[in-house]
Amino acid sequence: MHQQRAAGPLAVIAGGGQLPEEVIEAARASGRDVLPIAIQGEASASLLRFEPVELGWAQIGKLFDLLAKHQAKELVLIGSVSKRPDFTQVLGDFGTMRRLPKIIAALKGGDDSLLVKVMGLFEAEGIRVLGAHDVAPQLLAGSGLLAGPHPSDDALAELEFGKQALNTLADLDMGQALAVKQKRVLAAEAAEGTDLMISRVSELRQLGRIRSKGPAGVLVKGAKRGQDLRVDLPTIGPSTVRGVAAAQLQGLFVEAKRVLIAQKAETLRLANKQGVFIYGY
Amino acid sequence: MHQQRAAGPLAVIAGGGQLPEEVIEAARASGRDVLPIAIQGEASASLLRFEPVELGWAQIGKLFDLLAKHQAKELVLIGSVSKRPDFTQVLGDFGTMRRLPKIIAALKGGDDSLLVKVMGLFEAEGIRVLGAHDVAPQLLAGSGLLAGPHPSDDALAELEFGKQALNTLADLDMGQALAVKQKRVLAAEAAEGTDLMISRVSELRQLGRIRSKGPAGVLVKGAKRGQDLRVDLPTIGPSTVRGVAAAQLQGLFVEAKRVLIAQKAETLRLANKQGVFIYGY
Repeated sequence: MHQQRAAGPLAVIAGGGQLPEEVIEAARASGRDVLPIAIQGEASASLLRFEPVELGWAQIGKLFDLLAKHQAKELVLIGSVSKRPDFTQVLGDFGTMRRLPKIIAALKGGDDSLLVKVMGLFEAEGIRVLGAHDVAPQLLAGSGLLAGPHPSDDALAELEFGKQALNTLADLDMGQALAVKQKRVLAAEAAEGTDLMISRVSELRQLGRIRSKGPAGVLVKGAKRGQDLRVDLPTIGPSTVRGVAAAQLQGLFVEAKRVLIAQKAETLRLANKQGVFIYGY
Repeated sequence: MHQQRAAGPLAVIAGGGQLPEEVIEAARASGRDVLPIAIQGEASASLLRFEPVELGWAQIGKLFDLLAKHQAKELVLIGSVSKRPDFTQVLGDFGTMRRLPKIIAALKGGDDSLLVKVMGLFEAEGIRVLGAHDVAPQLLAGSGLLAGPHPSDDALAELEFGKQALNTLADLDMGQALAVKQKRVLAAEAAEGTDLMISRVSELRQLGRIRSKGPAGVLVKGAKRGQDLRVDLPTIGPSTVRGVAAAQLQGLFVEAKRVLIAQKAETLRLANKQGVFIYGY
């Protein structure tokens, strides 16, 4: 996406995991000034090397003051949040209290609408919310073979079936991944996340419910149709490759430009080493 | 289904679990003469009280001889099979060998088509394949509240969403069950079976990905659209109720007349005790 750059720094509000660091580095590498903000109790300790401002959930007022002080007009929300914050249990600062009715209204919706509403809170105050794909496109999967052996014709046929299946699952707001063998859905991701879904395929193997000599079947992961990538950007990383190898799937198909590869060099190296393909479709 | 009774006995080919015994007893209770046949290595030891004929996978020839000798023109295939038989690895009797090309052709299809083709092998030789629902309808779920507290309006709304979702999943030959909370699919069954799917909901609870004080969400289980109930009759039992209670779901909706309740008295008693509803829709 081509876009005008705002004058101020890009605020990166960091949850857990390594991804916030990668996004900060990628944004800086592309010449962007970054204001790192760590969510207390969520951001990883290694984020401290960026000397972030640390803020708790109840410090929404302070957050907005900070953005104003630095004239930050754009922000990215990135990283994992282990628990839904319970704003009704914390006594917030004044700026939090003032916004509390809106925040609580936002928390009442479903999971996706929550983040959409949180983004609405920022945008209502003139702060533009960007996605990691906007500020760090170099982290996204490219097209074609990215690592490992070239997928077989059977695997490519499984991709076609898997893409249709993901499209159908999007009607139920399900996704973002599934494991497919021939024209059979082995496992479909709902609320459990991709890693747990993949480990289920290993269990099915152990239970004798998948029979094949050697690896068979593929993982297909992509963004849900209509998915706002700022809210939920599908991501793979070393643990995905390890899971796919353990489940004896042949490889991973990822939607090009719409799936982020965390720890890209390590992820691709591991796929090459394990003989698992990663292919952007 | 209204049907003419065949003159000879009903052959019941029994895999694992208690269900074959229940079906034999129910068929006998309705006045039917039964010829019990145990699949070696699959049928449960307690089936021996019916003095079944024991046959291995490679004794297809002997099976057909047995059916002919007893003039059995109808059979039911019931119970679990822990592994797909590998007919290419066993030396069969003459009647097996003669049918081997057809059997191997049948084994090459997907999972559903396998059983359909096996049934075709029987029907091609004049043996009618019935379902447990045909010969033991008293084991099926009835309509309305069957056990536990009456479902709340929220739960009934979740049922409506769940029915639509199952209908969508049927396009992918997925089903037969899912866990729903509000308009969110928590978990959808693919190849793992209902019990493993329910235990995933417990894991999601432990991971903090489902938040509610007390039980919330429901299980919906029904036959896939177009499902041949002789091939795969959805079944619940005590383990389903235990799983639903452990996952802190409010209850189970089952499709009336198309879901079998194994160990019915015990299943309903347990649901009443746990405060989990079972409701036929």
